[in-house]
Amino acid sequence: DGGSYDVIHDASSPAAGDCCAQQSSARHNWEMNYQEAAIYLQEGENNDKFFTHPKNAKALAAYLFAHNHLFYLMELSTALLLLLLSLCEAPAVPMLRLGIFVHATLELFALIVVVFELSMKMRWLGFQTFIRHKRTMVKTCVLFVQFIEAIVVLVRQTSHVRITRALRCIFLVDCRYCGAVRRNLRQIFQSLPPFIDILLLLLFFMVIFAILGFYLFSPNHSDPYFNTLENSLVNLFVLLTTSNFPDVMMPSYARNPWSCVFFIVYLSIELYFIMNLLLAVVFDTFNDIEKRKFKSLLLHKRTAIQHAYRLLITKQRPSGISFKHFEGLLRFYKPRMGARERYLTFKALNQSNTPLVSLKDFYNFYEVVGLKWKAKRNREHWFDDLPRTAFLIFKGINILVKSRVFQYTMYTVVAVNGIWILIETFMLQGGNFFSRNVPWSYIVFLTIYGVELLLKTTGLGPVEYLSSGWNLFDFSVTLFAFLGLMALAFNMEPFYFIVVLRPLQLLRLFKLKKRYRNVLDTMFELFPRMASLGLTLLIFYYCFAIVGMEFFAGVVYPNCCNTSTVADSYRWVNHTVGNKTVVEEGYYYLNNFDNILNSFVTLFELTVVNDWYIIMEGVTSQTTHWSRLYFMIFYIVTMVVMTIIVAFILDAFVFRMNYTRKNQDSEEDNGIVLEKEISKEEVVGIIELYKRTSAAAETAQLQKIVLQMDKYGQMSTLFLGRRSRTKSDLSMKMYEEEIQEWYEEHSRKEEPQAPLQEPASASNSSLKPLSLRQRSQTII
Amino acid sequence: DGGSYDVIHDASSPAAGDCCAQQSSARHNWEMNYQEAAIYLQEGENNDKFFTHPKNAKALAAYLFAHNHLFYLMELSTALLLLLLSLCEAPAVPMLRLGIFVHATLELFALIVVVFELSMKMRWLGFQTFIRHKRTMVKTCVLFVQFIEAIVVLVRQTSHVRITRALRCIFLVDCRYCGAVRRNLRQIFQSLPPFIDILLLLLFFMVIFAILGFYLFSPNHSDPYFNTLENSLVNLFVLLTTSNFPDVMMPSYARNPWSCVFFIVYLSIELYFIMNLLLAVVFDTFNDIEKRKFKSLLLHKRTAIQHAYRLLITKQRPSGISFKHFEGLLRFYKPRMGARERYLTFKALNQSNTPLVSLKDFYNFYEVVGLKWKAKRNREHWFDDLPRTAFLIFKGINILVKSRVFQYTMYTVVAVNGIWILIETFMLQGGNFFSRNVPWSYIVFLTIYGVELLLKTTGLGPVEYLSSGWNLFDFSVTLFAFLGLMALAFNMEPFYFIVVLRPLQLLRLFKLKKRYRNVLDTMFELFPRMASLGLTLLIFYYCFAIVGMEFFAGVVYPNCCNTSTVADSYRWVNHTVGNKTVVEEGYYYLNNFDNILNSFVTLFELTVVNDWYIIMEGVTSQTTHWSRLYFMIFYIVTMVVMTIIVAFILDAFVFRMNYTRKNQDSEEDNGIVLEKEISKEEVVGIIELYKRTSAAAETAQLQKIVLQMDKYGQMSTLFLGRRSRTKSDLSMKMYEEEIQEWYEEHSRKEEPQAPLQEPASASNSSLKPLSLRQRSQTII
Repeated sequence: DGGSYDVIHDASSPAAGDCCAQQSSARHNWEMNYQEAAIYLQEGENNDKFFTHPKNAKALAAYLFAHNHLFYLMELSTALLLLLLSLCEAPAVPMLRLGIFVHATLELFALIVVVFELSMKMRWLGFQTFIRHKRTMVKTCVLFVQFIEAIVVLVRQTSHVRITRALRCIFLVDCRYCGAVRRNLRQIFQSLPPFIDILLLLLFFMVIFAILGFYLFSPNHSDPYFNTLENSLVNLFVLLTTSNFPDVMMPSYARNPWSCVFFIVYLSIELYFIMNLLLAVVFDTFNDIEKRKFKSLLLHKRTAIQHAYRLLITKQRPSGISFKHFEGLLRFYKPRMGARERYLTFKALNQSNTPLVSLKDFYNFYEVVGLKWKAKRNREHWFDDLPRTAFLIFKGINILVKSRVFQYTMYTVVAVNGIWILIETFMLQGGNFFSRNVPWSYIVFLTIYGVELLLKTTGLGPVEYLSSGWNLFDFSVTLFAFLGLMALAFNMEPFYFIVVLRPLQLLRLFKLKKRYRNVLDTMFELFPRMASLGLTLLIFYYCFAIVGMEFFAGVVYPNCCNTSTVADSYRWVNHTVGNKTVVEEGYYYLNNFDNILNSFVTLFELTVVNDWYIIMEGVTSQTTHWSRLYFMIFYIVTMVVMTIIVAFILDAFVFRMNYTRKNQDSEEDNGIVLEKEISKEEVVGIIELYKRTSAAAETAQLQKIVLQMDKYGQMSTLFLGRRSRTKSDLSMKMYEEEIQEWYEEHSRKEEPQAPLQEPASASNSSLKPLSLRQRSQTII
Repeated sequence: DGGSYDVIHDASSPAAGDCCAQQSSARHNWEMNYQEAAIYLQEGENNDKFFTHPKNAKALAAYLFAHNHLFYLMELSTALLLLLLSLCEAPAVPMLRLGIFVHATLELFALIVVVFELSMKMRWLGFQTFIRHKRTMVKTCVLFVQFIEAIVVLVRQTSHVRITRALRCIFLVDCRYCGAVRRNLRQIFQSLPPFIDILLLLLFFMVIFAILGFYLFSPNHSDPYFNTLENSLVNLFVLLTTSNFPDVMMPSYARNPWSCVFFIVYLSIELYFIMNLLLAVVFDTFNDIEKRKFKSLLLHKRTAIQHAYRLLITKQRPSGISFKHFEGLLRFYKPRMGARERYLTFKALNQSNTPLVSLKDFYNFYEVVGLKWKAKRNREHWFDDLPRTAFLIFKGINILVKSRVFQYTMYTVVAVNGIWILIETFMLQGGNFFSRNVPWSYIVFLTIYGVELLLKTTGLGPVEYLSSGWNLFDFSVTLFAFLGLMALAFNMEPFYFIVVLRPLQLLRLFKLKKRYRNVLDTMFELFPRMASLGLTLLIFYYCFAIVGMEFFAGVVYPNCCNTSTVADSYRWVNHTVGNKTVVEEGYYYLNNFDNILNSFVTLFELTVVNDWYIIMEGVTSQTTHWSRLYFMIFYIVTMVVMTIIVAFILDAFVFRMNYTRKNQDSEEDNGIVLEKEISKEEVVGIIELYKRTSAAAETAQLQKIVLQMDKYGQMSTLFLGRRSRTKSDLSMKMYEEEIQEWYEEHSRKEEPQAPLQEPASASNSSLKPLSLRQRSQTII
């Protein structure tokens, strides 16, 4: 995401300067076309809408300024600074407390930076587009409110109730790097309508059962759960989370055993049926949204490619892009790409025998441009060039480490190690854990692992060894274990946690079974998406933590809730029996909203749901019963997010399983690989081209290839392009049949407006500014 | 399922008798062919394997004896009797306790009936097939053990530890009526391997974290959760169910706030990742199994049809089945079907212009035979034949009740009623609920509903009114409300629960939105499957309840567990403060295994999972710590079943949603409808046919049609065949493309062994017994 923006900026600022000067030489116009095409392709890749495309030279300058990693980092760090301020503000974490003057000044500073960022954005988008862009408008409003409040705080020198701090999240969400979070939020909001429908069904049954329960159980005066309609409702809401389950039933069950039917029916309908229905509905919507998202992104990319294509063809040769122009595009799109890679990318795209890349070929741009090219090596092992004896030794080691016997021996060692650790720990039972002398078993196993590591590194060569994720894992675990040994040897207690990382070696056993490999691979593939979902959850946590702190900071303390039904959990009594001091601790007073870290832990406990009503009742007994709304809304929000997470895992896993089933023959999944051969003449031809534009670095790189060919006496070299498979590739394969339909439907919609095959841009100077202006007119 | 077996028996026993006598007339041979074909078709429908097909005349007699509702009911009732015996045995429900002599005699009686059933089965299957049939063999072994134990109980006059009673479930599972339960069990067992894999992953991480937790937290002596490795393991297992969540963290969290990281990481990995993975894996397997099951059933049915077809064609006319033979088949397959329906079914099957049904047409047998045929009516409303004035009045009512205004007025009334009930209940707050005078609001609303019901019944006609499920629901709710009014008026308190059924009227509001209609329709469609899943769960409950009663009956009582960590929950103290008696009740002693009903409630509480460890620890403190195994295994078993239930709901819902999406144009889903026209000549021709076989009832029915046609002066009548859509129909549509492939693959496999197009049976007498003998030879 946005990984290529910085380079554009670095390389193209002189070009942008040229364009401002409106020089009319053909070459500079071509430079502008390259740049604009590159921007189109980036917009396609990042799913930026085309109506935010820079419309003139001034906007272009601002666009380039606002699209590079330095700017993104600034955005991110100001957002984080604003969020982290809540560590130091009013109910602060004790160690991080700052004076009001200090944190308010910091806040003002950060807000001014945000103002600067927004003004750059306005410059780039233009005022009209700026106010039509919803997210930016919301951000502006929040910024305005925050600004006023920060000044008020500075003037009054005291913090007022600032719930609006919860809105600070928007600064983080708006960051370029948080695109995944934005997508998640969008997906959550899109899943909301069906979710709310089913939620209403849930609440409806809850109300019916609350009325029923009130009628049935309120005559029983020893039943505190149903004595009023409100209690009845609250307790059935809590029962939905099962949090008060057998307890809520017990008083009525003790009086009449058949009253359990009420609870069984309620739970069966609400918990086992409707809650699962909720998951089903969300899962279904999720599935549908994922597909539509993929479709729209695919078509967006296609449109971007069409736009870029129109800027790169000439009137003289309207049937395709020549290498010269393609090279110009790549100079802006991927400035760090070498001349060899550029030519290989061009060759990989070019399916016809002509020297031009047609639009049909160019549609594969995104799939091909990510490939990493390497000359296909002739030697198999790293030690092939060594003298005979050394070769034989290394070859022997190579065969050994690749043998099944070696592998299974290692699995056995790992298993024995695992059992050993278990027994050792079991025998320890409260003894002295970390004696001065290092246990001998530890040294033995570590030695074995060390030898294995050494053999594998030498047998396979360090590069090949570390290219496998599993080997990397082995390596780091062994390294950690070695560090643990050092820690033990030098008796550094703070490091003893490394010792307990030892069992991680056991994870290696999971390589044995295909399903585990599948599961763990899926896990690694899911990780980025999971992390972004986690971040999304944290953003919700932050909002709720701020609100919780503003309302409930300091309301819960030891023995605070002696009048409530959950008094025991908050009790802290320190009484003396005989000559021993007995402490009775309920500990729940620790689950408070006294600072943001405590709030996060409390909110996590609420997420886990178990016994959350104790926290709710504790707080409620100290405030009003409206506080329950906070907890209930939080429950529903986390339910939404959690359901989405479950739906996501389900979807990803089932998708991958279906994919595996569809491609059972192509078992080994090495990612996308492409082969291309380049002849000497071709290289020489390109060198000529570069010499004309006096690009010394590129010429040198290419000449090296020619020298290499001469050395081995080859007339051509084979290159391998490789990249890992992405979700998009999988989707392409899964929806293969439908994709063609989408394309046709798309082109039917597009064509009447703009016949794409016709060259809209040319190398003559007058057309270029016109095309920019034309576009801005059609958009506004 | 098996709904047509009884009738076969009634109608065909004389034919079977004939066959035993080995009479060689062609007609009787045809009768046998019809019967055997009908049996094949039934085997296809019920997914009975063909190797259990009766192989000779004796087996056929036994088969017919063992395949009718009377026999099935006997099976079911003996199984239920055996299961219900546990209500009266040793730790019996107090009110139902029986003497040992009585219940042991009852048991012996039931077991003897089972012996009789099994001997019939053996007669039908033959000894060889009998011992190869696994389920029957297991049943026989269990029967043997139960027999011995029952006799031992009778002799000793005292119950010993009889855990084997848990195996009684097999008698229920083996019932013909419990086919759905068997399928569920099979599905659960098929889902087990991937489930167990992921479970191992789960347990592996649990062990790693248990070791880690032991090292980290056991130095803290105020932390009772991690002081030994066993405690550490048990508490992390409980933590997996979140049941002890904030509590297990609190002692370490109080000492060091960062220790919460351990728990957050553990829960994130185990609960939020691996548990969801478990669901994903089960869901995926479930999906796959459903498809394979559908495929195999489809092919099984196809083979059954092929077998039946071969028995019905003649050497003279090998290209198809004539109506005479088709009618003969239906006489055995569906004896209650009238002559008209038989002919219509034949016509519906016959796609060609010839008077024969070819094999290709015959493949649709199962889809067509279920249709209910009705002559297409010419009149639109029930009142069309009434005099003019009455017609206009009813027409007006008809238009009124079909109008949107009327419908929305009723929705408004229902909504107002709902709000009214809520407010009324809220105002009641602990007052006198059921006063003598009936509240006026109740009468007003009931009157409105009554008028609506009257209008709808008269406007639509009672038949059309009650044919809609929603109207039926309205009707019954209004009826209940009326009964409630009666109960109130006559002050019959036990009936007051009817009063609280009033809010059910509100359910009508859910008709308003399409999604709710979809959800509720799906719910009704799922209901049979859900019920069978519930029954499956109950069978597991029964097993665990028996085991629990044998081991834990009577171990839990008030104040039993004062030495354990959960003492408070079992406390029952009755102390006097001032002159008031204060009762402190923990109530958990009620969650015991003292009789089977209590056990079921306790097991339900364990299923809900919340606070289950209190029950576990209570029992453990009174017995040994091995008791925990019982609870943990129960948790895992319910987890499996619950995951399957969730997967099932997900699958069914997503499947239906996809189906709806695929058929968005055919919005109205009226089930399967087929139209067929019959001319007068055809009917007359069939009457001739029946007259020859002297079937008086059939002739009379057909003559009525002729009379009807004469009355209206028609030359032909249009008939509508209708049935509701089943899951199988949906699957047919969903897998449309793949089905053809399956068929081809199937026929490639079948054809070399038996060329189906060739008539294997004929109307000549010598072939028939041979074909029976041949089959038995090829099978054994």
